[in-house]
Amino acid sequence: MAEIGFLGMGIMGKAMAVNLLRHGFKLTVWNRTLSRCDELVKHGASVKETPAAVIKKCKYTIGMLSDPAAALSVVFDKDGVLEQMCSGKGYIDMSTVDADTSSKICEAITSKDGYFLEAPVSGSKKPAEDGQLVILAAGEKALYEEALPAFDVMGKKSFFLGQIGNGAKMKLVVNMIMGSMMNAFSEGLILADKSGLDPHTLLDVLDLGGIANPMFRMKGPTMIQENYSTAFPLKHQQKDMRLALALGDENAVSMPVAAAANEAFKKARSMGLGDLDFSAVYETVKIAKDSS
Amino acid sequence: MAEIGFLGMGIMGKAMAVNLLRHGFKLTVWNRTLSRCDELVKHGASVKETPAAVIKKCKYTIGMLSDPAAALSVVFDKDGVLEQMCSGKGYIDMSTVDADTSSKICEAITSKDGYFLEAPVSGSKKPAEDGQLVILAAGEKALYEEALPAFDVMGKKSFFLGQIGNGAKMKLVVNMIMGSMMNAFSEGLILADKSGLDPHTLLDVLDLGGIANPMFRMKGPTMIQENYSTAFPLKHQQKDMRLALALGDENAVSMPVAAAANEAFKKARSMGLGDLDFSAVYETVKIAKDSS
Amino acid sequence: MAEIGFLGMGIMGKAMAVNLLRHGFKLTVWNRTLSRCDELVKHGASVKETPAAVIKKCKYTIGMLSDPAAALSVVFDKDGVLEQMCSGKGYIDMSTVDADTSSKICEAITSKDGYFLEAPVSGSKKPAEDGQLVILAAGEKALYEEALPAFDVMGKKSFFLGQIGNGAKMKLVVNMIMGSMMNAFSEGLILADKSGLDPHTLLDVLDLGGIANPMFRMKGPTMIQENYSTAFPLKHQQKDMRLALALGDENAVSMPVAAAANEAFKKARSMGLGDLDFSAVYETVKIAKDSS
Amino acid sequence: MAEIGFLGMGIMGKAMAVNLLRHGFKLTVWNRTLSRCDELVKHGASVKETPAAVIKKCKYTIGMLSDPAAALSVVFDKDGVLEQMCSGKGYIDMSTVDADTSSKICEAITSKDGYFLEAPVSGSKKPAEDGQLVILAAGEKALYEEALPAFDVMGKKSFFLGQIGNGAKMKLVVNMIMGSMMNAFSEGLILADKSGLDPHTLLDVLDLGGIANPMFRMKGPTMIQENYSTAFPLKHQQKDMRLALALGDENAVSMPVAAAANEAFKKARSMGLGDLDFSAVYETVKIAKDSS
Repeated sequence: MAEIGFLGMGIMGKAMAVNLLRHGFKLTVWNRTLSRCDELVKHGASVKETPAAVIKKCKYTIGMLSDPAAALSVVFDKDGVLEQMCSGKGYIDMSTVDADTSSKICEAITSKDGYFLEAPVSGSKKPAEDGQLVILAAGEKALYEEALPAFDVMGKKSFFLGQIGNGAKMKLVVNMIMGSMMNAFSEGLILADKSGLDPHTLLDVLDLGGIANPMFRMKGPTMIQENYSTAFPLKHQQKDMRLALALGDENAVSMPVAAAANEAFKKARSMGLGDLDFSAVYETVKIAKDSS
Repeated sequence: MAEIGFLGMGIMGKAMAVNLLRHGFKLTVWNRTLSRCDELVKHGASVKETPAAVIKKCKYTIGMLSDPAAALSVVFDKDGVLEQMCSGKGYIDMSTVDADTSSKICEAITSKDGYFLEAPVSGSKKPAEDGQLVILAAGEKALYEEALPAFDVMGKKSFFLGQIGNGAKMKLVVNMIMGSMMNAFSEGLILADKSGLDPHTLLDVLDLGGIANPMFRMKGPTMIQENYSTAFPLKHQQKDMRLALALGDENAVSMPVAAAANEAFKKARSMGLGDLDFSAVYETVKIAKDSS
Repeated sequence: MAEIGFLGMGIMGKAMAVNLLRHGFKLTVWNRTLSRCDELVKHGASVKETPAAVIKKCKYTIGMLSDPAAALSVVFDKDGVLEQMCSGKGYIDMSTVDADTSSKICEAITSKDGYFLEAPVSGSKKPAEDGQLVILAAGEKALYEEALPAFDVMGKKSFFLGQIGNGAKMKLVVNMIMGSMMNAFSEGLILADKSGLDPHTLLDVLDLGGIANPMFRMKGPTMIQENYSTAFPLKHQQKDMRLALALGDENAVSMPVAAAANEAFKKARSMGLGDLDFSAVYETVKIAKDSS
Repeated sequence: MAEIGFLGMGIMGKAMAVNLLRHGFKLTVWNRTLSRCDELVKHGASVKETPAAVIKKCKYTIGMLSDPAAALSVVFDKDGVLEQMCSGKGYIDMSTVDADTSSKICEAITSKDGYFLEAPVSGSKKPAEDGQLVILAAGEKALYEEALPAFDVMGKKSFFLGQIGNGAKMKLVVNMIMGSMMNAFSEGLILADKSGLDPHTLLDVLDLGGIANPMFRMKGPTMIQENYSTAFPLKHQQKDMRLALALGDENAVSMPVAAAANEAFKKARSMGLGDLDFSAVYETVKIAKDSS
């Protein structure tokens, strides 16, 4: 089995890399702060001092950076990915970045005759450790197939979605549905409460029926307590709603329910709730005062 | 164990009664067409020729009728429930009826010093046979407790929701959330399709994430095929949205997402889709023609 | 010219009656507190002590009562309209009442072989004095035509809208459009303000263009000052939105903009603004805090 | 009175220039097709062969070009405005352009130490001839004041709105309100029709009340006939709704009614109505089939 490069040993990257090593993959790793690679070495990884050196050594390399700026920097900076990219080599960016960032990286890689794949994941640290991520890949099909053994270890499921940008689009569609559901859920919880029903009982009833889902199960109890400690910031959820609606605008898809949900998230932002969890949209439905 | 009365041997009633008999309950049953009781007799049930006779014999009696008219008739008609209702006896209506019907029956029973419980269920034939119903009871708490051993056999879970009417309200809240979700889901499926993503892949991705639920799993594939064979008629879903919004109006709960979903269901009705499955709201999102 | 009966000398009724007398009509008037008829006598009116006596004397009689209860009382109470109603006589109710009240009165009058017309007006004291009301009549066409000379004096315009109930429906449609406009206007005023534009300038620009209208001109300046002294209570506006949406529901007309506006009015009610002017819906758009 | 430059003798520009000449202003004009300047010469104008030559001669110059491309070309091309722009000179762009175009021109002019004013107008040929335009100016206040005598002749009213971009923003806010109103109006017309009321009568009633406005008066009769000959294309109206909502997003202003209206315009686009008049949104409310 050929050696795989792996750039970025943050929380997610390290968990994914350790998991690969445990399953017998050979890895050459790099991290901006090199000491974070030590643990990987114990698991059998080699280390290189620059992204360029990793690329030079490996047939294909995975990047898992913390944000778009880091994702761009690792590619374009001195001693970066681009310097050693060439025909026959591949780069797979598994960071969560916007479509523009992904396109820029793709163009640069392909201009060097390299292969590129965007492969954002859904799932956090625990699923990364357990190989239970969901991988939304798009770009060069051949590279996807080459990386499939690694994807099979890192994820419970990987998808090849076609051309570059489709990974980001898929996340937008999923998040749009999620955002509308969160609003419907908030409205239901408060309607129950104001109609003399116990919202906890509503949660129990929901969980036994056809629309039972992990989000209601997980967020319901904290929402009733008005506890919105942030898993996914409301302002990011609203940004995704906005981008999904813009995607609909481009394609002339009318989405009145998503639009209403988006305005509720905007209302929540106007109430200063943007940095709380997106479930804080619950606050926009609450009643401020007895009605007349 | 005292004998329980059971009125109504339709598809649901028979399945529930057989299930009770199998678990060792003693039943006295009645049905408008008496021959439908024969199978129950094989399982050990007694039969009476009128609802009144069942009530007279049993400490409490369950009714499971097909619609509000039948539910009223079995109580108020000659030889009906009311004739033998008296202090110390109870009547449990498990039919799905509106709040008004339930109130009328409740008043009549209590005017005779009887106990009354409304206990509509969610679930169809199979869950009824398997004792996997969800029971939404409201009314006389003492009667609920008396019937609990029977509820435990018929349902995977039963809830006592407080005063008469709360069973119906709980169903409205659940159906309102469900209706908004169906709209969000339809918008997402079409947005995916028009943005160059495979809607079947969207279904797969959704089913692996935090909003995975049985409804998306079950309805998604048929919606993509534009197959709306009716499980729950769209016009009934829209009626429940309207009633839930009216409940919100009474209690000054603003529900912009439910309101947008309701208008989409009304649009579907205006397109002649009222008798199809409620997933046919998908048709309102579809694009009629290429956009400009 | 035959004598016309006129029941109800409140603010509106007195203004309308004085206006008719000035234009040469002969009136026989009645009011619950008879002394309020004195001024009318100075203008040449006759007075009777009961509604029944007015009906007996006049070919047709106009009622202008303060609310549905008063409108019903003047017809159904002892010595009321019904007692002398008979073939060849007519009764015109110009009070603002709901469809049910109007139907009850209509049935009672026609059961006595009398003619009935509902004829609610739009306009307040000043237009009543000046004969500048708008009259929305529905019911018996022959009676409408008989009363047309009087309507021409009381109103700048009268409409015959067909069957009983159409007067109320027309008011609902107009008020629904008005309520949606008030929301659009509120959103625009606040968008201007938050975008660095002077809302007063927006008012000036609006007033010079294609959507210039008296409501924007009149309400804009007070809304900017957050002054909502009540001309039309918000809770009544919201009730009319609800009834208009219900009318749409009956007829399968989907009205997403009206539905969104209705939810905003409900939000305003939940904030305790129901007794303020309907322009207080402006408060629901305002930003509570700086956004993130 | 110093001579004013005027670039662009299209329908609007010529009407505005003739009007200025009639009121005693001295003009030096230019047009890409120079022959279109002949009529102006008859009214006393001088002609120059390039924009640069006009700028050189005049203290300030007005541009009235057909679109953003032409507005940019007249400034940046060879022999364009920029070549002779210098300290002490001013340029006023009265074309309707987007905020980006306006910013680019502003930057270029001020980099040459010139003064710049954007001053888009509302109104078409007839108001231009009659000096009845509404002028929405923003940018350099001193230049606004210098041009005020000319603005007073060209417009019934001119506004100075502050910094560059505010002219475009003001138009967005106005058009957003207009778009929501058009939807409310469409919903009302169809609700009236389906409820058994004559929509023409609704138009008459509306025109006598507090929300009477030129748009309802002008568009109502043609909408009822389903005649949507284009005054303002629906796709442009929808674009303005989208931009206004984006402006709201930036400033955390929640606008649920505008959002619902925007989705209706998107629906209309999806039905292939984008090139018709924006009143064609009426088609989205119409009922396709009898309801169930």
